[in-house]
Amino acid sequence: MSGATRMRTEIAEQPAALRATIGALLPRAADAAALARDTRQVLLIARGTSDNAAVYGSYLIQAHAGRLATLASPSIATTYRSRVDLSGVLAVALSQSGRTEEIVETLAWARDGGARTLAITNGAGSPLAQVAEVTFLTQAGPERAVPATKTFTTQLAALAVLAIGLGADLDPGELRGVPDEIEAMLAGLPDTGPLVGELAAARGVVVSGRGLAYAAALELALKLKEACYLHAMGLSYADLLHGPIAVVDSQTPAILLAADSGPTLDGTVDLARRVTGAGARAYGIGGGDGLAAACTRALPGPRLPEWLAPMGLIVPGQLLTEALARRLGLDPDRPRGLSKVTQTA
Amino acid sequence: MSGATRMRTEIAEQPAALRATIGALLPRAADAAALARDTRQVLLIARGTSDNAAVYGSYLIQAHAGRLATLASPSIATTYRSRVDLSGVLAVALSQSGRTEEIVETLAWARDGGARTLAITNGAGSPLAQVAEVTFLTQAGPERAVPATKTFTTQLAALAVLAIGLGADLDPGELRGVPDEIEAMLAGLPDTGPLVGELAAARGVVVSGRGLAYAAALELALKLKEACYLHAMGLSYADLLHGPIAVVDSQTPAILLAADSGPTLDGTVDLARRVTGAGARAYGIGGGDGLAAACTRALPGPRLPEWLAPMGLIVPGQLLTEALARRLGLDPDRPRGLSKVTQTA
Repeated sequence: MSGATRMRTEIAEQPAALRATIGALLPRAADAAALARDTRQVLLIARGTSDNAAVYGSYLIQAHAGRLATLASPSIATTYRSRVDLSGVLAVALSQSGRTEEIVETLAWARDGGARTLAITNGAGSPLAQVAEVTFLTQAGPERAVPATKTFTTQLAALAVLAIGLGADLDPGELRGVPDEIEAMLAGLPDTGPLVGELAAARGVVVSGRGLAYAAALELALKLKEACYLHAMGLSYADLLHGPIAVVDSQTPAILLAADSGPTLDGTVDLARRVTGAGARAYGIGGGDGLAAACTRALPGPRLPEWLAPMGLIVPGQLLTEALARRLGLDPDRPRGLSKVTQTA
Repeated sequence: MSGATRMRTEIAEQPAALRATIGALLPRAADAAALARDTRQVLLIARGTSDNAAVYGSYLIQAHAGRLATLASPSIATTYRSRVDLSGVLAVALSQSGRTEEIVETLAWARDGGARTLAITNGAGSPLAQVAEVTFLTQAGPERAVPATKTFTTQLAALAVLAIGLGADLDPGELRGVPDEIEAMLAGLPDTGPLVGELAAARGVVVSGRGLAYAAALELALKLKEACYLHAMGLSYADLLHGPIAVVDSQTPAILLAADSGPTLDGTVDLARRVTGAGARAYGIGGGDGLAAACTRALPGPRLPEWLAPMGLIVPGQLLTEALARRLGLDPDRPRGLSKVTQTA
């Protein structure tokens, strides 16, 4: 393959996309606050990459804004067609294109059940934006590679603005610093070659993180499945201990993601020790010197506070995915069996 | 290995365990109704196998009782130690032993946040039962094999009683018929040998189902990971289409579960055609003649209405897991790296 893939180009566009998104949305935190005034909780509606972003929103809003924030099951709306009382609920639907019918239909169902409605989408004027009372438009620009990159990180930024609008104890100035830090990461990333080589020979991989970092772990697992056809399982730290730790072995390494600080770091370092102690390889992304020392190999993460770290933690994972796909002779821009707008029948 | 494994014995004990559980709990549906009187929604708290049961509860209550029912993130309570307003919430915690500290702590956190509290556990007098206002005690008896079987199906039965208590449009008489049907299934199951042989050679497997059957798919994936160290991914029908369908190939079959009727059957048959059309093997469990015809191999499921089918759909999966573990030279009763009560630090 000659020249940069679209995926690689779009990974590099993230600082600009984040700058534009944060600049456009931070002044609109008050719109979210007004919309949420008579609600007490958040229900997130999404699929695929957007669902991984929703996991970030769920942890962020619950950990920092004191509100219950959980994930909807769209098939309740679209397949079972059940009426559910959603008064007092702020329904937040995420879709890159804003045209995934299942998500549009589920947001309309939430509205009909009494919820207030917010859309987070890259699709201006899309059907999803038309259903929602308030739309947070991400400023990712066109994304042509099938594996989403900049639309994911800008969704996280939009969710961070939402959490601030909901009264979270978080500093908007720290959010404004994210694009610069990701730019610095992209300029200074170490060689991923040895890690790519080992992953190319792996039978499968487990990707894990806890709390907020779990969202980035799920997203990395999805990228590796989509673009590399790698049998990658995204598992929370706790779920990994409740059974599936048995699948980690000499042919099945674990990739562990953590912020450099925060309450989930120590547990992630312990998990790395447990993985290597079981004779398997552990690859760290982020987690500072502590996680790097406990892992077989490690890539540095962002210098960001824990609540913003997932936006940076996914970046080395995106680069790894793109490089691994090429190493395997695959085109990361056009994985088999996938189109850009996925419709769930 | 000589003689029956404990896991095989406990699989066979399910009709009796279900009979005892349903007999003990159905008369107590009114207790759940009274507890839930001033609540509007359900928050399910669980890990591992119990979390898969919680997925069943979430779909059942939303599809049939018109209430929002979603899954909690225990680390919000135990790691972030965030205060969340849970007034109007019925918190339902599930734990086989009732002694998993994380779950006990999260139920206490829910109580402190204003929730009403229900425990579903096999552990009479356990710490979890002591925290909860009402306990639904499953009557599974001692379960000694590490992979849970009868504690899972009795948890599903307890959740079915809860849904009835919450006013679901469901017939308790149908629930009372489940033990007999599972007994009939265990007496008449076809030879799983050819399927076990093919799974023994697989690089990994995807296990999928939609709606209520998704809970049984997740649980089968967990069994295969725990007892067979098989790289098994449990994915909902919709999530499988949003990307990971790419991992299904000639070395990675899909196991698809569906009830013989209900709104998710057609989609599952379509998915089977898509998997085989992509050159991969699809193995059906349940789904009647339609799913069997669309699959490479199939095992019959239970003759139960869709809302109860997951209790029977998991049974062929349990037998498959036990047989595959033995075929691989593993002891299904004592998987590596696991103990019966898992503590999440």
